Amino acid sequence: MNFINKLSAAWTANDSLLCVGLDPDLAKLPPQFQNDADGIFQFCTGIIDATADLACAFKPQIAYFAALGAERQLEAICGYLRENYPHIPLILDAKRGDIGATARQYAREAYDRYGADAVTVNPYMGSDSVEPYMEWSDRGVIILCRTSNAGGSDLQFLNVDGQPLYQHVARLVADKWNSNGQCALVVGATFPEELAQVRAIVGDMPLLVPGIGAQGGDIAATVASGKTADGMGMMINSSRAILYAAPQAGEDYAAAARRVALETRDAINQYR
Amino acid sequence: MNFINKLSAAWTANDSLLCVGLDPDLAKLPPQFQNDADGIFQFCTGIIDATADLACAFKPQIAYFAALGAERQLEAICGYLRENYPHIPLILDAKRGDIGATARQYAREAYDRYGADAVTVNPYMGSDSVEPYMEWSDRGVIILCRTSNAGGSDLQFLNVDGQPLYQHVARLVADKWNSNGQCALVVGATFPEELAQVRAIVGDMPLLVPGIGAQGGDIAATVASGKTADGMGMMINSSRAILYAAPQAGEDYAAAARRVALETRDAINQYR
Repeated sequence: MNFINKLSAAWTANDSLLCVGLDPDLAKLPPQFQNDADGIFQFCTGIIDATADLACAFKPQIAYFAALGAERQLEAICGYLRENYPHIPLILDAKRGDIGATARQYAREAYDRYGADAVTVNPYMGSDSVEPYMEWSDRGVIILCRTSNAGGSDLQFLNVDGQPLYQHVARLVADKWNSNGQCALVVGATFPEELAQVRAIVGDMPLLVPGIGAQGGDIAATVASGKTADGMGMMINSSRAILYAAPQAGEDYAAAARRVALETRDAINQYR
Repeated sequence: MNFINKLSAAWTANDSLLCVGLDPDLAKLPPQFQNDADGIFQFCTGIIDATADLACAFKPQIAYFAALGAERQLEAICGYLRENYPHIPLILDAKRGDIGATARQYAREAYDRYGADAVTVNPYMGSDSVEPYMEWSDRGVIILCRTSNAGGSDLQFLNVDGQPLYQHVARLVADKWNSNGQCALVVGATFPEELAQVRAIVGDMPLLVPGIGAQGGDIAATVASGKTADGMGMMINSSRAILYAAPQAGEDYAAAARRVALETRDAINQYR
């Protein structure tokens, strides 16, 4: 089963468009996970177990592991996910961008080493920075289009022949780079009207949408702008709001994460 | 001493604008390095020892290490370089691109974990994807501008208000992002006339120039187009042509690498 089919099955099975981001910042982890080499593994697998029936995907952010030299823990977390929840897509958030032989090394890292179903990729270096990923025909390539940060406008909103650059990227991917049907796009929730414009350009292509939760994007506007006609088509990511949910009375971190994940999934489903 | 000053001192000390790229592809290594876990370390430190008096910088490409799970070897290579050749800048070629807290993790990876003097970064996500690196005030940030691959034109050559996108990136960096004087740009050797246009925009800012050697860029045109008035200003990278130089009679791989590095440095110096 390829990435797009696997994602589609997870949307249905868990009645969910929620992607749970795994960004384990040591300083924010509960104290019992901060002093042990395997604390990151224990923390992340606890989050996975608590939310796997509520998520359409998990998305580890490799930067948090790379800063700590914790690649082995990331391998173990990805292995745990694939073994225990093989029906939930694993997205490696790496935003890689390089060409030819080097891009192929990054594809090997994402798909072979970590076993990811999809990886995020930066479009700035063009088609031959994306093509090497396509050799893994059952995997996905999720290309940055319109990002949720303020500075995203510096390049993405530049006027190219009357339209902002991010719309050219959406069109390039939809019309050219997606010839094998392996592509998805990153479009932030902080700009719902732009999300709607990308949706109009790319048809039913899946969109990975960061920016709700801690980043403040509006769920109703996000879902209305980005969903496909059948109420699917999105992986709406939340990381910090779930990982570092403040436990209420009687809860541990995993129960708090589950509570917020459930609230978020259901809030999204109200508007599908 | 900050990155720009260290680079400037290395240009002078070694009379060289040559940057030696370390892209260790296992399949291309001499047989004695292919079967041993430390083969990559032995190979790369052999290249470093053979070329350290001919180079203005070394540039390991992290993708080759990441694909193999060889981060420990990369740490060891970087440590070896810093200890034995502390006057030669270490550039981590990672082309990272992410925002805020995540970009800070990538900066920690490059600067603290690997001890790099500079790291390559992708501009697509804008100013707040570059700012976190500036917190390390003695380090450099080398931003992709015009890349040497064919597909680079897909985005970089789009027409933004009458000028190609890459020139807007050059101007953004020169006029805004470089307020602390920590920035350099990546501009490929395959388009000398565009290199000249970037040089005209950015003044004396250092340029990292891939694309000579195996990629076929013309050295005379590259140097003429990219040098500063004092014959400096560039890190002209060669990776494969040096790493995998075919040994002549009586040479081993390191001697062959030294021969090609010397020829390349001197060919560059003819045109400075």
